[in-house]
Amino acid sequence: MHINQQHCTPCQAGAPKLTGQELQNYLHSVNPQWQLFDRQTKIKRTFKFKDFTQALKFVNRVGEIAEQQQHHPNLNLHDYNQVTVELYTHKIQGLHANDFILAYKIDQLQP
Amino acid sequence: MHINQQHCTPCQAGAPKLTGQELQNYLHSVNPQWQLFDRQTKIKRTFKFKDFTQALKFVNRVGEIAEQQQHHPNLNLHDYNQVTVELYTHKIQGLHANDFILAYKIDQLQP
Repeated sequence: MHINQQHCTPCQAGAPKLTGQELQNYLHSVNPQWQLFDRQTKIKRTFKFKDFTQALKFVNRVGEIAEQQQHHPNLNLHDYNQVTVELYTHKIQGLHANDFILAYKIDQLQP
Repeated sequence: MHINQQHCTPCQAGAPKLTGQELQNYLHSVNPQWQLFDRQTKIKRTFKFKDFTQALKFVNRVGEIAEQQQHHPNLNLHDYNQVTVELYTHKIQGLHANDFILAYKIDQLQP
């Protein structure tokens, strides 16, 4: 099933982190602006807006999706009009399919 | 005039950064959880909430004040239920009375 039809599912504490080719495949399924960081245990993308109000609206739209999916990114509204979204799965201290499913949904918010 | 009656005013590029005793006096006028960082050019405070939704509500309430005052902090919603507010004045690359005026107003949002 393509990532665009998937939803976040409860993640078990013992689940393996995404690594290697599998991680690369997931990375290619989202916007290329998503970057791995923190020793490939997290992804982040920065979105730039016209002003603070538009950036805050985006934070709220991502917040709605996060609540729907019960998976909550870090959302940093900074430098007046930018929002950096950071995704990882706390339970496994790394990346899970859920992170890319959410990243893909966030990508769709952009015009 | 006490800080609780002040409002942010347009800051000129050449204005001096707060330092020394003046900086300490401003720091004592806000909640002691505000901490100096980045070589005393910024202040930050972390607020913890019941859940993500409450944290996001707080981000929006701070956003409203920021728009009213036309002074915009960095707002980092992280770790599911925490919001870290960072304040500094971009034009002077340091701290201005405006930062503490806004910090005080944000303090009043907390129950």
